[in-house]
Amino acid sequence: MASATPLLKDELDIVIPTIRNLDFLEMWRPFFEPYHLIIVQDGDPSKTIKVPEGFDYELYNRNDINRILGPKANCISFKDSACRCFGYMVSKKKYIYTIDDDCFVATDPSGHKINALKQHIENLLCPSTPFFFNTLYEPFREGADFVRGYPFSLREGVPTAVSHGLWLNIPDYDAPTQLVKPLERNTRYADAVLTIPKGTLFPMCGMNLAFDRDLIGAAMYFGLMGDGQPIGRYDDMWAGWCCKVICDHLGLGIKTGLPYIYHSKASNPFVNVRKEYKGIFWQEDIIPFFQSVVLPKEATTVQKCYIELAKQVKEKLTKVDPYFDKLADAMVTWIEAWDELNPAGASVANGKA
Amino acid sequence: MASATPLLKDELDIVIPTIRNLDFLEMWRPFFEPYHLIIVQDGDPSKTIKVPEGFDYELYNRNDINRILGPKANCISFKDSACRCFGYMVSKKKYIYTIDDDCFVATDPSGHKINALKQHIENLLCPSTPFFFNTLYEPFREGADFVRGYPFSLREGVPTAVSHGLWLNIPDYDAPTQLVKPLERNTRYADAVLTIPKGTLFPMCGMNLAFDRDLIGAAMYFGLMGDGQPIGRYDDMWAGWCCKVICDHLGLGIKTGLPYIYHSKASNPFVNVRKEYKGIFWQEDIIPFFQSVVLPKEATTVQKCYIELAKQVKEKLTKVDPYFDKLADAMVTWIEAWDELNPAGASVANGKA
Repeated sequence: MASATPLLKDELDIVIPTIRNLDFLEMWRPFFEPYHLIIVQDGDPSKTIKVPEGFDYELYNRNDINRILGPKANCISFKDSACRCFGYMVSKKKYIYTIDDDCFVATDPSGHKINALKQHIENLLCPSTPFFFNTLYEPFREGADFVRGYPFSLREGVPTAVSHGLWLNIPDYDAPTQLVKPLERNTRYADAVLTIPKGTLFPMCGMNLAFDRDLIGAAMYFGLMGDGQPIGRYDDMWAGWCCKVICDHLGLGIKTGLPYIYHSKASNPFVNVRKEYKGIFWQEDIIPFFQSVVLPKEATTVQKCYIELAKQVKEKLTKVDPYFDKLADAMVTWIEAWDELNPAGASVANGKA
Repeated sequence: MASATPLLKDELDIVIPTIRNLDFLEMWRPFFEPYHLIIVQDGDPSKTIKVPEGFDYELYNRNDINRILGPKANCISFKDSACRCFGYMVSKKKYIYTIDDDCFVATDPSGHKINALKQHIENLLCPSTPFFFNTLYEPFREGADFVRGYPFSLREGVPTAVSHGLWLNIPDYDAPTQLVKPLERNTRYADAVLTIPKGTLFPMCGMNLAFDRDLIGAAMYFGLMGDGQPIGRYDDMWAGWCCKVICDHLGLGIKTGLPYIYHSKASNPFVNVRKEYKGIFWQEDIIPFFQSVVLPKEATTVQKCYIELAKQVKEKLTKVDPYFDKLADAMVTWIEAWDELNPAGASVANGKA
């Protein structure tokens, strides 16, 4: 489908947390200029973000979030890039692409600049195949197909909800690995896209991520991180675990692999240790929790699934730390806010917030 | 580990079904000559197979199989490359590599000849990670690691039982796909190795496959195919499904991806339709069967697991076709023959059959 990939420019918003790097948008201009940008400022609202001319954008700072959500604004993280999920909520488009401002355009092994957005769109528009593994990876790519032994009844696939892209140069490592391997760079371009099988969890990174808002948006909540919270750098992980169990329950697919972006800058590992250390400990309980979650048959929408998940988080993870009690409440608040801003059937191709 | 990969030449046998292609061994000579070959002739025992000078090999034809196994020889397929599994049984080495005679040495994107065996050994000697997906694929490769959010308690991994390699040029398609896409060639070199997650089945191809005999050999039975049987081309698939559920049960890993070989020749799709058509139909029942198989806690060895699996095949698949009743009996015979030729603890590093 490569040559015929639609641009979807009226159906996709690009959501970016605070842009601190002025080169960022210039570098992406050829690829991002046709799209509407939603920038969510994570820190001091009095600081201004410069957006170069020619881009169509809206910008939200903390004052805007408080004004729009009122008391429900407490579910949106402050002074942390996790606040980007507010952008998912106010968008009215079917698709979202989110990217960090230290992610630049990568080149493929033949030296061509990679249009990451195009690959994400291809991933999202092709079905996923979560029930059986295809050894030649994405069966819908040009020059590939289902291999011998792949059941024919499973070849139709299921709708794809999430496309998880990867990173050349600085890999997305946790603080301990950063400390141990400060010089490690990812130079391996693995030319593969694959569906993460049903029942398998994965670490979803928010650096280079696209999803179908209609299918999974309401579960793409980045939690309570940063200022006033005991934890950071688990925003995207939390969203990934929630999304995966809900996609598995609702029969939706998640793909990972291409496209690559070039991750330019490692975050400070010493700061990261402080943000992560509780998460590193807690995830040993969180993972078994998500691996064993069962959602009831009556949970037929993302919202219903998410409310049920919040209930189980409160019941089963609060014993790990009181933080999860607060997080479970925030998950419910998030859904209430989502539904307020996104009344049923309100998602339209060319709407604006 | 790339630079320090051991050759394992006293611990690995190469098992090849009938060699019809005289160029085959010459092409592989630089890589295969240090190893012992076990050739299992699938057709007329009166025909002789020419093996070029310099190779250390043993050759078995049907007469040998009958002589060695007696009445139990009926579990070994006749006039079908599925007979290769006899070679797994008579080997006394810890590792097996099996390859078809139409598979040649492939080149990587930088033009270097790929030493497939070396990559298989690397795959087998590194742990597998079946409980959680690592988005940068094999975490033990040079320049890679576990990404942020990967639980630390799962990073030790589990022993790797199987390494499943892929194919450039002619992809391993079923007959219907071959007929629909006669000109399709696989030119995509995906530089990735990954563990197939626990609970996920995959189509295991026997063209380019390595495994640890001690860990999983007794389940690597290629079934009843070819002459006198209603089905063909499902030998490796059957072995793959059995191995996967047993590996999942015993906490062992299966990897897929690198190495590539160059698959030179598509088999005849018209002949393949005849061999496959029952399998295409049956697999719609076989897959749900394997997806729901539960092995009892008492099944603590591969043999015990396999006998239990045979019992469940008899109970649940015989209603699909009487063939499965016969296959279940052959599975039991296979284990009896395996145990006869491989008394407990008999596997030694430098033993010979």
